[in-house]
Amino acid sequence: MTGRDGGADLAPIGEFSPVVILVRPQLAENVGTTARAMANGGLFHLRLVSPRDGWPQERAWYASSGADRILDAATVHETVADAVSDLQHVYATCPRPRHIVKPVMTPRGAAAELRACERRSLRTGLLFGPERAGLDNDDMACADALIRYPLNPGFMSLNLAQAVLVMAYEWWMYADDTPPRTLMTNETHVATKGELENFMDHLIRDLDACGFLRNEQKRPGMVRNLRHLFQRGEVTEQELRTLHGVVSELSHGRHARRGGK
Amino acid sequence: MTGRDGGADLAPIGEFSPVVILVRPQLAENVGTTARAMANGGLFHLRLVSPRDGWPQERAWYASSGADRILDAATVHETVADAVSDLQHVYATCPRPRHIVKPVMTPRGAAAELRACERRSLRTGLLFGPERAGLDNDDMACADALIRYPLNPGFMSLNLAQAVLVMAYEWWMYADDTPPRTLMTNETHVATKGELENFMDHLIRDLDACGFLRNEQKRPGMVRNLRHLFQRGEVTEQELRTLHGVVSELSHGRHARRGGK
Repeated sequence: MTGRDGGADLAPIGEFSPVVILVRPQLAENVGTTARAMANGGLFHLRLVSPRDGWPQERAWYASSGADRILDAATVHETVADAVSDLQHVYATCPRPRHIVKPVMTPRGAAAELRACERRSLRTGLLFGPERAGLDNDDMACADALIRYPLNPGFMSLNLAQAVLVMAYEWWMYADDTPPRTLMTNETHVATKGELENFMDHLIRDLDACGFLRNEQKRPGMVRNLRHLFQRGEVTEQELRTLHGVVSELSHGRHARRGGK
Repeated sequence: MTGRDGGADLAPIGEFSPVVILVRPQLAENVGTTARAMANGGLFHLRLVSPRDGWPQERAWYASSGADRILDAATVHETVADAVSDLQHVYATCPRPRHIVKPVMTPRGAAAELRACERRSLRTGLLFGPERAGLDNDDMACADALIRYPLNPGFMSLNLAQAVLVMAYEWWMYADDTPPRTLMTNETHVATKGELENFMDHLIRDLDACGFLRNEQKRPGMVRNLRHLFQRGEVTEQELRTLHGVVSELSHGRHARRGGK
């Protein structure tokens, strides 16, 4: 697979980002989709322990959607012990840990620890077992802790790349500071209360002019209801200009029709 | 697809869990893997807007790994407007929102809002666009807010089922209270400080007996170092029993060898 030139320009984002170790993977396609999932979450280092069909396999590159660099750099190992020999913390994914005395982490908890290890310049690894059987007891004895995904207990079936994606996603999210909710305003901005009040004045003036607010007793409540409606969400300055136009046009149209009668 | 009998015994976990709406999906396999990802995260309601190859498609069931019930219950709609007409909050996934004035949420932020809607008995929906093009501007105008996945900006390519999995995972995780780290101890328990001290006494007694701690000046520091080592992790009561055995056997073997000389 030397001399490949395609694929995304991926590079190891951190020397101490966790190594993904696929133990006895069966399908080369799954190695490819694993590389894709790793790329999504900014992981780069991939190791394969005794892949069933040998390595390299062209099908992995086809399935990787451009994560070629990760596959190009992947290394092959005969045993789990060999694949983890230079690492300092190793986590093993395990859907149903039994009869093992070992710390069990959530993917989110593990991501926090992996990030802490990264800050301490410790080399870490994540073990994923073969598609059907999962990791065996000897594989898991090579790990410091197990990772168990808290998913719907009625339906735990997760394919290899999806298991890798969840960890890659949590790894990425730990360092991400995107606010949970923001408003895309592009060339405009969220309206100030003054801008909003300016529009409310326009609206009420025109509603007074057309007689919509003629009931003096109900007027304060009706005005307040309109105010509540427009205060509820974030309105942009651009949207207020549109609303000014809407009110003016409706009001002008009404006058024009009246004048034409 | 009536009369199907296979698949996992999935049921709608909540009447107000979000509806997954695939807009103009191209490949039936992706509808199947979407159902699988939904099942992982406890989502049940699936709607399809103008699936390219028609519906039902046998291939979807093959790809769903047993999430048949979700596919059996899926409904088909001609337009996005029709698919969302009975919903109260709609979120549209969108990798690169542009020129749209709309709240943008992270998957985690959206999951928190969806759970809040669930508690208020509001019907919610999640729009996912076609494989290649994504949602168009008219589709997005049907939504209250956009969801943007904060992934590696150098590699955003996520397939349909993986995009659904991330939302289903966050939905599930929001309500999950698994501790980030725990210790599986099965039939044993984390040792008390007294049990640990009992073992340390045994170890030090035998080390004194064999002369390992004969240097009176270094003795306190050596004992302290051993203490630090055994205090560092959570040791179980069962492991301490094993360690008692190890010390006794080593010590006994040494006496036996000496005696045999």
